[in-house]
Amino acid sequence: MNYSIIRYMLGTVLKFEGLFLCLPMLVGLFYGEKAASAYLISAAISLLVGIALGSKKPKSDVFYAVEGFVSVSLSWIALSLFGALPFYISQDIPSITDALFESISGFTTTGASILSNVEGLSHASLLWRSFTHWIGGMGILVFVLAVFPMSGGHSMYLMKAESPGPSVEKLVPRVKTTAVILYGVYTFLTISEMVLLLCTGSDLFTSVNMALATAGTGGFGILNDSAGSYAAHTQVIITVFMILFGVNFNAYYLLLRKKWTSVFHSEEVRAYFGIILVSGLLIAYNIRGIFPNPLDALRHSFFQVGSIITTTGFSTVDFSTWPMFSNSILVALMFVGACAGSTGGGMKVSRFLIMVKTAVKELFTIKHPHGVKSVRMDGRMIEHETIRSLNIYIIIYALVFVFSVLLISLDDHDFTTNFTAVAATINNIGPGLSKVGPAENFGFFSNFAKYVLMFDMLAGRLELLPMIVLFAPMTWKKK
Amino acid sequence: MNYSIIRYMLGTVLKFEGLFLCLPMLVGLFYGEKAASAYLISAAISLLVGIALGSKKPKSDVFYAVEGFVSVSLSWIALSLFGALPFYISQDIPSITDALFESISGFTTTGASILSNVEGLSHASLLWRSFTHWIGGMGILVFVLAVFPMSGGHSMYLMKAESPGPSVEKLVPRVKTTAVILYGVYTFLTISEMVLLLCTGSDLFTSVNMALATAGTGGFGILNDSAGSYAAHTQVIITVFMILFGVNFNAYYLLLRKKWTSVFHSEEVRAYFGIILVSGLLIAYNIRGIFPNPLDALRHSFFQVGSIITTTGFSTVDFSTWPMFSNSILVALMFVGACAGSTGGGMKVSRFLIMVKTAVKELFTIKHPHGVKSVRMDGRMIEHETIRSLNIYIIIYALVFVFSVLLISLDDHDFTTNFTAVAATINNIGPGLSKVGPAENFGFFSNFAKYVLMFDMLAGRLELLPMIVLFAPMTWKKK
Repeated sequence: MNYSIIRYMLGTVLKFEGLFLCLPMLVGLFYGEKAASAYLISAAISLLVGIALGSKKPKSDVFYAVEGFVSVSLSWIALSLFGALPFYISQDIPSITDALFESISGFTTTGASILSNVEGLSHASLLWRSFTHWIGGMGILVFVLAVFPMSGGHSMYLMKAESPGPSVEKLVPRVKTTAVILYGVYTFLTISEMVLLLCTGSDLFTSVNMALATAGTGGFGILNDSAGSYAAHTQVIITVFMILFGVNFNAYYLLLRKKWTSVFHSEEVRAYFGIILVSGLLIAYNIRGIFPNPLDALRHSFFQVGSIITTTGFSTVDFSTWPMFSNSILVALMFVGACAGSTGGGMKVSRFLIMVKTAVKELFTIKHPHGVKSVRMDGRMIEHETIRSLNIYIIIYALVFVFSVLLISLDDHDFTTNFTAVAATINNIGPGLSKVGPAENFGFFSNFAKYVLMFDMLAGRLELLPMIVLFAPMTWKKK
Repeated sequence: MNYSIIRYMLGTVLKFEGLFLCLPMLVGLFYGEKAASAYLISAAISLLVGIALGSKKPKSDVFYAVEGFVSVSLSWIALSLFGALPFYISQDIPSITDALFESISGFTTTGASILSNVEGLSHASLLWRSFTHWIGGMGILVFVLAVFPMSGGHSMYLMKAESPGPSVEKLVPRVKTTAVILYGVYTFLTISEMVLLLCTGSDLFTSVNMALATAGTGGFGILNDSAGSYAAHTQVIITVFMILFGVNFNAYYLLLRKKWTSVFHSEEVRAYFGIILVSGLLIAYNIRGIFPNPLDALRHSFFQVGSIITTTGFSTVDFSTWPMFSNSILVALMFVGACAGSTGGGMKVSRFLIMVKTAVKELFTIKHPHGVKSVRMDGRMIEHETIRSLNIYIIIYALVFVFSVLLISLDDHDFTTNFTAVAATINNIGPGLSKVGPAENFGFFSNFAKYVLMFDMLAGRLELLPMIVLFAPMTWKKK
């Protein structure tokens, strides 16, 4: 293991975090809040530790997959630890465990909160929560790659370990340029939403926070009822942008390059919009009796569908009180998740497409034992390596899921709560059903259960392997 | 598709079913019940239809995997349909849907009942329920292979399609001899349990029924409280036999041939007993406060653990009222299931072993990118084909599971009920949690939900592919 390069990576990440923490500090100063000093102190600590770790260039450039996984998982843990500091120092969140939970929930774009009254937070902390979503959405290391000169061949390992989806494609040959394009599209879309919200009557603070949290498909709101008290047209704007941020960012790059047909023919993008359309209509029909007119049913249905499939986690109503058929569709969407290469979590639409195609291929082979059929996506054959790593993903996903449900069931809450709490954290959504429904929060769990769920959030955001590699004794065994 | 051979197979199965139906008829006569005539009529119908279908030898011997899957699934559907006749004709179960549900639940060894008062049934019907478990446990086609002369190479396709586990091994080169050995061991163990129950004070009718239902890992009891009112030592005997019937039958064959070390070193058998031991102790500790002394806690814990992991489904207490940690362990065991090649259902211990080994191998490859490591079990390398079909199995399992939960959620029961109802049927267990807990039954579901669950029972018993192939439009498309 090349420890010096991991140390150097951590230093770089913490230096950036120190800079990021200055934004909420400025907001705190603007509103004349005491919390500003907590953010100043946290920024200073991050910067100092970052400089200490990152001052000495790494001795060696040796960088393999194992270094990639370990440095990514450690970076995210460090990011979360230092991101929790201001919550605790400002006493906005007086418990260390809870502060860490909120920070991890922010960076992993989960949006599950331990707070029952977010309206009681300082403006600085509210903005920091939304900002962590934005940083975590596209990925801190993708950001580092975009703005920081790095030598050696390790950038692709980092990108692979942090980017969601069954296979990672570089848009352009250079990883750095790919990272710049991704953050460019991301920033442009975020500002678009912010401006649109501003122009349609939301105030600046609301617009900035909602845009940041939507962009990262996070789900931390600044009001206790999430998005419930916003005007209908504001909810519609948020719905549209949630769904846009769940699209594979490659599609936007192709749009920029005017390759319209490639975007239109992308099987993942078509499936994604198809699932949203069908689920939205089914739920709207199922809940039609609850709302005074069909348009309201459609608006609320598509808001929750967009929120859950993109793993954002905002809500306009307490959908846990809807009929069980609607709830079951939403629970199923929790697992589907957004497109690969988006800021959304979950298993990703493309993984499901490959799963379905693999099953269909098997039926074909049974019928035609001598026929040859390969699994194809967008006209290209899916590589054996992609299918293999998908299987590993499913296996580890299932094992982590089951053990997490077992561990948090020690708290003795009902099965629906435990199952959907794990589903909502490992898929980086936020709300679940029963005691973790949209009108509730995660504060009631024991500290032990909270740490299990924190692990799930990080494991889910990094698509499992980085966190598993970090905690596997095998990784640290000397040969 | 070779229709004539499928017709011939169905005929053979129904002829045997006609003979099987004479046993409950005799019991009915013995007890002087009117139901005896219902069993006589049903036996006659089965025999006549069987003779009609099976009189003409098939024109061709051509038999591929697709014929194997279709004839196995159709055989099981026919078996269930004709097995439901006496329930309906005797009016022991006055609804056709319910009679079919009970019959499928019996043959698939699920043991989920739509009856709230089994003690109101005729003795003939009680015995028929237990006997369907016994027939379904080892498999009707394995039985046919054991006693019926069959030419051509299709016997292995049938065995593959009906036998549980990730890969099917013949014990001896000839399929027929393998089938005879399996049924020999099965019968010997069943009679052993029956005699032991008789010798320890149970009456003959109880002993026969409990032995048949335990052997098939079924779970239909003859009392309303399942096994709750039996003496402690009777419960212990049932526990031991449930666990014995969940062991891979290859192990018994090896014992017969005195290959002690092979049995002791079988990784699946060791894992199976290991899981039972750990789960049993954890639950006993978790429920220690509920029972007056630790021995009672141990007895009840190991009974439910043995009942659930072997997918039998008997219960001595209403475990759905136990703490959630114990319930979560039991729900996890529902998915693990028994050993491959046993009469138990679920995913099978060996599949989980392969899953865990595959994940560990991946971690090894990340650490040692140039190292070579294969996935091994019992010292032998697992073939690529086995891993591939395991992955297909997991994918189809997940898809069937999710769609079943979605469909039955139309009934608007709670999530725990829906989730565990599907888990309890697709894994052929019987009871779940909440409204389908051990003290409840499946009678309250709508007919539509019952048909979904019937599909799940059959799909689970036949390990998915046969039922999927039967219903896939691709199978029936002419090229």
